Amino acid sequence: MNWQPNRQRDTSLQQQIVQWITALVERGDWVAGTKLPTQRQLAMQFGVNRSTVQQALEELKAIGLLESKVGSGVYVTHNSWHALIQQTQPNWQTYIETSIHKPNYHTIQLINEYEQREDVIRLGTGELAPSLLPTEAIEASLRELSFQPKALGYSSPQGNDHLRAAICDYVRKRGIVAEPQQVCIVSGALQALQLIAVGLLEQGSIVFQEPTSYLNSVHPFQSVGMQMVSIHRDEQLAQTLSQRKRKKQAVFYAIPTLHNPTGQVWTSLEKKQLYEACQASRIPIIEDDVYHELLFEATSPPIKAMDSSGQVLYIGSVSKTLSPGLRIGWLIGPTTVIERLADIKMQTDYGSSAISQEIVLHWLQSGKYESHLASLRQHLQDRAHFTEQILQGKFKDIATWSKPKGGFYIWLKFHEPLIDKEFFMKLLQQQVLINPGYIYDPQDHHHIRLSYAYATYDELQEGLQILHKCVVEALLQ
Amino acid sequence: MNWQPNRQRDTSLQQQIVQWITALVERGDWVAGTKLPTQRQLAMQFGVNRSTVQQALEELKAIGLLESKVGSGVYVTHNSWHALIQQTQPNWQTYIETSIHKPNYHTIQLINEYEQREDVIRLGTGELAPSLLPTEAIEASLRELSFQPKALGYSSPQGNDHLRAAICDYVRKRGIVAEPQQVCIVSGALQALQLIAVGLLEQGSIVFQEPTSYLNSVHPFQSVGMQMVSIHRDEQLAQTLSQRKRKKQAVFYAIPTLHNPTGQVWTSLEKKQLYEACQASRIPIIEDDVYHELLFEATSPPIKAMDSSGQVLYIGSVSKTLSPGLRIGWLIGPTTVIERLADIKMQTDYGSSAISQEIVLHWLQSGKYESHLASLRQHLQDRAHFTEQILQGKFKDIATWSKPKGGFYIWLKFHEPLIDKEFFMKLLQQQVLINPGYIYDPQDHHHIRLSYAYATYDELQEGLQILHKCVVEALLQ
Repeated sequence: MNWQPNRQRDTSLQQQIVQWITALVERGDWVAGTKLPTQRQLAMQFGVNRSTVQQALEELKAIGLLESKVGSGVYVTHNSWHALIQQTQPNWQTYIETSIHKPNYHTIQLINEYEQREDVIRLGTGELAPSLLPTEAIEASLRELSFQPKALGYSSPQGNDHLRAAICDYVRKRGIVAEPQQVCIVSGALQALQLIAVGLLEQGSIVFQEPTSYLNSVHPFQSVGMQMVSIHRDEQLAQTLSQRKRKKQAVFYAIPTLHNPTGQVWTSLEKKQLYEACQASRIPIIEDDVYHELLFEATSPPIKAMDSSGQVLYIGSVSKTLSPGLRIGWLIGPTTVIERLADIKMQTDYGSSAISQEIVLHWLQSGKYESHLASLRQHLQDRAHFTEQILQGKFKDIATWSKPKGGFYIWLKFHEPLIDKEFFMKLLQQQVLINPGYIYDPQDHHHIRLSYAYATYDELQEGLQILHKCVVEALLQ
Repeated sequence: MNWQPNRQRDTSLQQQIVQWITALVERGDWVAGTKLPTQRQLAMQFGVNRSTVQQALEELKAIGLLESKVGSGVYVTHNSWHALIQQTQPNWQTYIETSIHKPNYHTIQLINEYEQREDVIRLGTGELAPSLLPTEAIEASLRELSFQPKALGYSSPQGNDHLRAAICDYVRKRGIVAEPQQVCIVSGALQALQLIAVGLLEQGSIVFQEPTSYLNSVHPFQSVGMQMVSIHRDEQLAQTLSQRKRKKQAVFYAIPTLHNPTGQVWTSLEKKQLYEACQASRIPIIEDDVYHELLFEATSPPIKAMDSSGQVLYIGSVSKTLSPGLRIGWLIGPTTVIERLADIKMQTDYGSSAISQEIVLHWLQSGKYESHLASLRQHLQDRAHFTEQILQGKFKDIATWSKPKGGFYIWLKFHEPLIDKEFFMKLLQQQVLINPGYIYDPQDHHHIRLSYAYATYDELQEGLQILHKCVVEALLQ
């Protein structure tokens, strides 16, 4: 989309724009129903005045190629498109609308889109800042790698044997006893959830989760027809689980350590209670433990460490600690279950990147990973402290929060329910991107997930200032 | 599973085996319904006599932990398992059996399993031999890579921008005109099919394919409820398509260049006929073109090159040419469709390995890829020639085949319908692994997909000799 009209040509700028858009529709690149960028965006892209864009669009509307929808924008029409290309193209829009997998929520699509821009302050991003990634050390480790030719072929279904053995050694320090055949390498934790969804659950199965949940911002279970049930962990948990489970399969999804988005860390007792409540109803637990390496202080072992009967599917990853670009995580569970999920992974993508697996193996075995983690935790703690100080100075009359125990996030709660789509968009117009609480709990308009892991110190300062101004304005309305 | 009983211990070997198996069941590693390895396999693993294994299994059957099913094998019982662990473990077997995704066919699971073994001659493997992979050159290229820190973060939804631009340049040589926003990087061609299945089709959608099809050996569409319809490409094609399509969405899957498994190459006319027949019914075409770089002689452009209205979804990959371990392929189609599929990919695995993407970019841009391909084609041609000579000497009275035009395969057709599961297993007992025709067409008992790409020359010689002997034996029965 980097095309610009050529000022040297005889054809007018407006006419060149008309021809360019017509060509996009003709060759099926903009299908019927496509929403055009705003006039402002197009003018910027083309490097022309907005009035030139406006006149070009009017011309295209006049010939019936485009249409305006009030308050919504300009779209490629269904009619004109048919006329233009004589009903030969597949009706892609219908294909998209009737398909199985749901699109991301609009807010999340916008987040994905704006995270690609350089000029946006990202206050919510669940990712290490580029400066915190050990880029040079990873580059250096590439120079130390050497492969057996077989390593570059198709992987074994469960992933690199040496890596699986190294992961067993690694998780033993967390109190987890596992054998390599109980480990499957996955392309990140999200893929582990995807495999569990299609490999262990049927349509209509229940996925229990806490009311505020990372799972509401992604769709691995919803997209294949599972029912999400929010449940509070209280004294009635065991009873509620047994009542709600009934005849369908069920599974409990939990992030007991540095919960996303709330940052909470469960006590040992809370972990035990969940384990026992699920055991009583024979409900498997998915323990998502991708943040535990980022704890500022040691905590009790994960639920998986108390699992004596193969009830817990445990998920780990290097995405939050080393590099999300590697796309390497792991899933630990009973051998039969792991073999089943590995079989599906083979049918899905024939395994994860062999090179990425070799890199992670090298980092685990050489001790580079552990020493990197020590320095990373210190950086994150400094960032958390810096951010808290800003909050303390500016936000203490309008919001509350807990001191972070590790990871990336402060779950910032405003006194008033201000955080809606409009508020999100208003900040976006000022180049500040937040992760609003409602993507984790549709009912929640009090919270934002503030991340101190991604933005620079200057950006944190500036972004929080803009956030503060918008909140104050909203309060005055 | 490398455990062996310890001969130094006071406990008898038999008793140690009983305890080991009990522990596996207790800790949920062998769940109810698990089939045990054969006595012969267990005896080999344990390094004990088969009678010792037999006595241990009898003891476990006596206490009700295991049970024999006649003609099928020994299984972990449902009862004893309940008794042992007091109904606390989730009933994993039920989870697995009722879940959405189908397991691989047993023959394919066996192929996946035996492909991991060193002592097996692989006559069917659709993969380059380790000696054909440019391992050292890939290692060397790792030393030349340097990353922007952002490159190691989460990828943009459609994948590395530079790689997508390089792919556009690359496919232009095939006559395909595409812009980077029409390209989505995927973790291999199979993932592209998976994304199309859930992102563009609804349950019950029709996937048209040729009667003999790679798609019958994998499940991207079947597992999400699509209906596979085999169709012959003949003069009635247009009519058949329009009749069969009716109200459901439909898509046509084709491998026009070096078809898997048959090795066929369509003529320009055949491609045009399919394109027009599908256009008449507005059916999108999935053009799987992962083998075209391996053509021994140039052929006509792909269907995508004649696609003027965004009707063809084009799939490419480096898995067959550079390294399957990289897990990098690409999908090219109309922008709206690509954005949709990229959105789903973000929900599935947050993108492909950043390092793998950088490697492929480097190989494309530096010209290393093209010069590697030239040498690879020569190696494959030599291997094809060698294999044909063996066939000419030994198989010409019992089978027919066509001279390969490129790629990996000879679609070897035996005069008699000998190739069934029993034949497959018989060869496997002699450490020879084949890809029988029935995994590509359940009705087909005449063919095997012979690959000259994987086995060494010696192995090809020896494997084909064993294959010949088995065929002759079967003919005499």
